[in-house]
Amino acid sequence: MSTIINGRKLAKDLNLKTKSRVQQLNQESIYPGLVVIIVGDDDASQRYVRNKHLKAQKLGIKSIIKSLPKDTTQDQLLTIIQQYNQNSSINGILVQLPLPAQIDERIISYSINPQKDVDAFNPINAGKLFLNEDTFYPVPCTPSGVMEMFKKYHIDLRGKLAVVIGRSTIVGRPMASLLTNANATVISLNHYTKDIKKFTSKADIIVSATGQLHLLGSCDVKPNAVVIDVGENMNENGKLVGDVDFDQVSKIAGYITPVPGGVGPMTIAMLMKQTVDLAVWSEKNGR
Amino acid sequence: MSTIINGRKLAKDLNLKTKSRVQQLNQESIYPGLVVIIVGDDDASQRYVRNKHLKAQKLGIKSIIKSLPKDTTQDQLLTIIQQYNQNSSINGILVQLPLPAQIDERIISYSINPQKDVDAFNPINAGKLFLNEDTFYPVPCTPSGVMEMFKKYHIDLRGKLAVVIGRSTIVGRPMASLLTNANATVISLNHYTKDIKKFTSKADIIVSATGQLHLLGSCDVKPNAVVIDVGENMNENGKLVGDVDFDQVSKIAGYITPVPGGVGPMTIAMLMKQTVDLAVWSEKNGR
Repeated sequence: MSTIINGRKLAKDLNLKTKSRVQQLNQESIYPGLVVIIVGDDDASQRYVRNKHLKAQKLGIKSIIKSLPKDTTQDQLLTIIQQYNQNSSINGILVQLPLPAQIDERIISYSINPQKDVDAFNPINAGKLFLNEDTFYPVPCTPSGVMEMFKKYHIDLRGKLAVVIGRSTIVGRPMASLLTNANATVISLNHYTKDIKKFTSKADIIVSATGQLHLLGSCDVKPNAVVIDVGENMNENGKLVGDVDFDQVSKIAGYITPVPGGVGPMTIAMLMKQTVDLAVWSEKNGR
Repeated sequence: MSTIINGRKLAKDLNLKTKSRVQQLNQESIYPGLVVIIVGDDDASQRYVRNKHLKAQKLGIKSIIKSLPKDTTQDQLLTIIQQYNQNSSINGILVQLPLPAQIDERIISYSINPQKDVDAFNPINAGKLFLNEDTFYPVPCTPSGVMEMFKKYHIDLRGKLAVVIGRSTIVGRPMASLLTNANATVISLNHYTKDIKKFTSKADIIVSATGQLHLLGSCDVKPNAVVIDVGENMNENGKLVGDVDFDQVSKIAGYITPVPGGVGPMTIAMLMKQTVDLAVWSEKNGR
């Protein structure tokens, strides 16, 4: 049987650490601040934003929700981002996606001060990760949460064969870069890949981020492999499940993340940690 | 027997096309301009710079060599780059590497106007490539030269298994991104990879950029694979050779690049093309 990677527990531990860092920083008169900007009234987006806001508050991070009407123009949004870029009490700026059609997400991603880019969507931060720059910069929170899991479970990556399924800019691509930077041999699969299972069945580490139900069963995974499931899908019974058939695969994998309770809680915990990291970095660098 | 990918011929054709584009642009009073900045008097660097300068002149591109003494400070170099950043007659700025120890290459790479960054070393351009942005941006010339080879020899990449050996910021990483963006399944190997040949022997496409003599022989390559050799090494007899044993591998590969006469000539031809692309882009965008 696999070791089940307990994302809820890891996230809880990390959040406690973040909370205590915030308390200590407050004593030095440093108050990490996060703004979450949301345009429109999409239910799911509103829920995500509220969750982030509540979590931040719980950890002592100053958090603002900036709610904008759905007919906000791109220029109006840019002006607001500019204000937060210059506001020294804000260390992390997060613009909840998706944005309404009149706003170009690419232009918005560029407009966020790279040093407050807590979601790490600004291409300059993507470039630093891609080039494995030896400096501090924000990293997308889902893949960095996965890296934290490897660390906490003492999973060695060097020289290991890692397969990343999916090449999104938010998960697959940065995940592949982080693994390459950690000296793994990395295979990046996409929907043109002819036989995904040919690759997964040989991998030491699998990260699946496809949103495809029942993508991997027990025959598709090597005994003792590490299986990280980033997928979030509704199954036939309306239950939240991942890309991987957990019941089957957990019988043969070495480590596996459940869905829910795996990668999900880590993403928001990393977002909180990164807000504090940005505050500390900004303090050190006098910005 | 393989089809030998004739880099010299491809480069010649591309250069002719670039030359004719320059002539046409001149008629519209557009004069593409390149500056190559060199610090110090390293022989090899001086030779590279001269080659680029002569090639540019031959194609009608206005070319300047800016030679600086080896004790140039970082601030002095930054000031000079700033001048070229603002000089509207310059479309491409290239700083020959390596730089003397007192100058931080990373800071220099950031200082080049991304829209004149003909070597594509600025992280913002790396980020655009990594994120597969749907806009115009410069791309490192060696991997883009390899992509040009695939195109000219009608080598389909979609769904193919491509192995990239090496993860340098100049070749390996951007090569892997270009292949991912072209819908190949990409394996990125590095020096921690335990058995390189296990991967190369299954690959449809191999790009080797290690600088390691005799890395790949005929047993390490699948019949009819496409083998691109970016290596440049001196063999036991002082002869320039690649990473791949050409005599052996050319008997079984489908396509192979020789060294010399393969990737090398394409790199400089792509540099020239990219200078002209930047000039056209800058004209269109009124900069």
